[in-house]
Amino acid sequence: MKDDVIALAQALVQRESVTPEDAGCQQMMNDRLAAVGFNIEPLFFTDTLNTWARKGTQSPHFCFAGHTDVVPTGPEKNWQHPPFSGLIKNGLLHGRGAADMKGSLAAMLVATERFVTKHPDHKGSISFLITSDEEGPFINGTTRVIDTLEARGEKIDMCLVGEPSSRDVLGDVVKNGRRGSLTAYLTVKGVQGHVAYPHLAQNPIHLATPALTELSQTVWDNGNEYFPATSFQISNINGGTGAGNVIPGELEVQFNFRFSTQVTHEQLQQRVNDILRKHNLNYELSWIVNGLPFITEHGPLVDATVNAIKSVTGLTTSLETTGGTSDGRFIAQTGAKVIELGPRNATIHKVDECVSTDDLIALTDIYEQILEQLLA
Amino acid sequence: MKDDVIALAQALVQRESVTPEDAGCQQMMNDRLAAVGFNIEPLFFTDTLNTWARKGTQSPHFCFAGHTDVVPTGPEKNWQHPPFSGLIKNGLLHGRGAADMKGSLAAMLVATERFVTKHPDHKGSISFLITSDEEGPFINGTTRVIDTLEARGEKIDMCLVGEPSSRDVLGDVVKNGRRGSLTAYLTVKGVQGHVAYPHLAQNPIHLATPALTELSQTVWDNGNEYFPATSFQISNINGGTGAGNVIPGELEVQFNFRFSTQVTHEQLQQRVNDILRKHNLNYELSWIVNGLPFITEHGPLVDATVNAIKSVTGLTTSLETTGGTSDGRFIAQTGAKVIELGPRNATIHKVDECVSTDDLIALTDIYEQILEQLLA
Repeated sequence: MKDDVIALAQALVQRESVTPEDAGCQQMMNDRLAAVGFNIEPLFFTDTLNTWARKGTQSPHFCFAGHTDVVPTGPEKNWQHPPFSGLIKNGLLHGRGAADMKGSLAAMLVATERFVTKHPDHKGSISFLITSDEEGPFINGTTRVIDTLEARGEKIDMCLVGEPSSRDVLGDVVKNGRRGSLTAYLTVKGVQGHVAYPHLAQNPIHLATPALTELSQTVWDNGNEYFPATSFQISNINGGTGAGNVIPGELEVQFNFRFSTQVTHEQLQQRVNDILRKHNLNYELSWIVNGLPFITEHGPLVDATVNAIKSVTGLTTSLETTGGTSDGRFIAQTGAKVIELGPRNATIHKVDECVSTDDLIALTDIYEQILEQLLA
Repeated sequence: MKDDVIALAQALVQRESVTPEDAGCQQMMNDRLAAVGFNIEPLFFTDTLNTWARKGTQSPHFCFAGHTDVVPTGPEKNWQHPPFSGLIKNGLLHGRGAADMKGSLAAMLVATERFVTKHPDHKGSISFLITSDEEGPFINGTTRVIDTLEARGEKIDMCLVGEPSSRDVLGDVVKNGRRGSLTAYLTVKGVQGHVAYPHLAQNPIHLATPALTELSQTVWDNGNEYFPATSFQISNINGGTGAGNVIPGELEVQFNFRFSTQVTHEQLQQRVNDILRKHNLNYELSWIVNGLPFITEHGPLVDATVNAIKSVTGLTTSLETTGGTSDGRFIAQTGAKVIELGPRNATIHKVDECVSTDDLIALTDIYEQILEQLLA
């Protein structure tokens, strides 16, 4: 039944589950998981529906993780087809969430149905960690499910997140880790005044630019086998009253690190402070650790994934740690091995998001192969 | 009649002449000027009342220049006394415009009345150039009066602007010139992108900070006998979408030069472009010449002013060219010698603006002495 995954993906896309709405997607999945022996545990936190579904209690414990929520569509008139129509045309399933990541959810579910039907007495256990809060503030989603599991000592050994990792063709890229993300809010203080009387003022913009130049030109590390070099980017800078004749009293700068496992966020914070102090700045600085870096090195999960992709597509996949964050970081913090594999990401978060139906069929085969290698 | 200048200043302060309103101030002055032989020429442009009043047609032609408009009061509850009450208490005349510059207008008028009464057949001619647009956009005020005079070949030889030039005591500072003012609007272009994919973006903030540092640290000149060194100040800098994970596509910077007669605005523009190009920036840059520098060197006007201050107050005044712009720059462009002398400026544009009544009496004496020396 090759069309089964496509029909399920289409049915999920047709539900308008913009964050934090789930719109019945999880119920649809849960009914099918329960039918093949999964124990279903809905976990509703504040405004967010999550599902923890597990079959078996033994190790190794393999988890499929994903999200039913989607980002907003923007003006629907900009879309070639209505974003929740689930239209299939010329081999493409169209709609918001088709690639990120309802197609993956359908592939996980159908792959699991096939595997447990074929191997009713498989090794270990299989679980689904599904949230409707991945695209939002990630407060009441995966983090709280993980907290619940940790509180009762329930451990995931290996986790496959269905995020759309592929670049040009299905399976060309797998994410076997993610960089850390660290955000800073810097206020450089000067003394406000009139531009005609600069000796009575201290221009915080003039004071700050040499330090900002040094920050933007510093080599923080050279990366390693798994990670590119740590990068620094200023995302926002604002100073000035709007008036042309006033020297502002403060300059506000927001910047972000994407960092490898070669440095810690504490080291980055220390080095930033050292640079700011070296330039004699009077400043305030606050930090948010958006996520710590993690890496899943070569081992059973990576090997099974690489082999499954090779077997289904013929490709030698590339293991990468670049790109944005995902819920995988929260799962990895528990000690689980985490990998991300899903369809091509070219259209995600854009108008006319779509996924190839052939890719969904192949992705289902890959997911099933991974289960075969790990739990058959 | 020492109280005459105070009564007139009070009557002017009591009129709510917030730019571009004149609120009857010029009519009050014109009635008195007409009574001592002045020819009155009201010049109304768009929304602004101006007065050109002249007695005599001969050279040397000495002009008193000033404005009846005042800046807004802000919330009146912040004022100790109602801002248009004209309350006199403990030797201070309180109110918006008391120091900037209705006190000076009263002093000019009373000094002129006394002088022409004492010297009905004085040398040369005396004029008043009064506007109600000095604190605003300066479009329909002094510039258009000057245009009118230039068009008919009417030339001012010497001009005293009543701007509050004094710092700590009346007469301690006279402005005998002003720096030029040149404003620039710079847009540095990069390529927008996601902070997680910096290789696909070009951060315009990172590109710009080295150039901004060089601009802020450049010595543009060392000034000269009359002018302090040219100064450069960034007044506004804005880049970023507000989001923490987006590298912005553009950075906007506004900066201003206050420049001496050692450089021209064309030279400054060329040198800024040279620096921006040296740093390989992709940018757009537009300029506004807010005012060209002018200087009134030692000569009859400066000497008369210095002597009058010495005679009335005992002070040796300081000739300066620092500080903000005034309408003097427009008059100086015609070739007139221009000087600025008025009361202390500590309270101007602030709540509880006030002027010392003793200072108004002394300022009237100084103005009269200047007329004595130049035209008696």
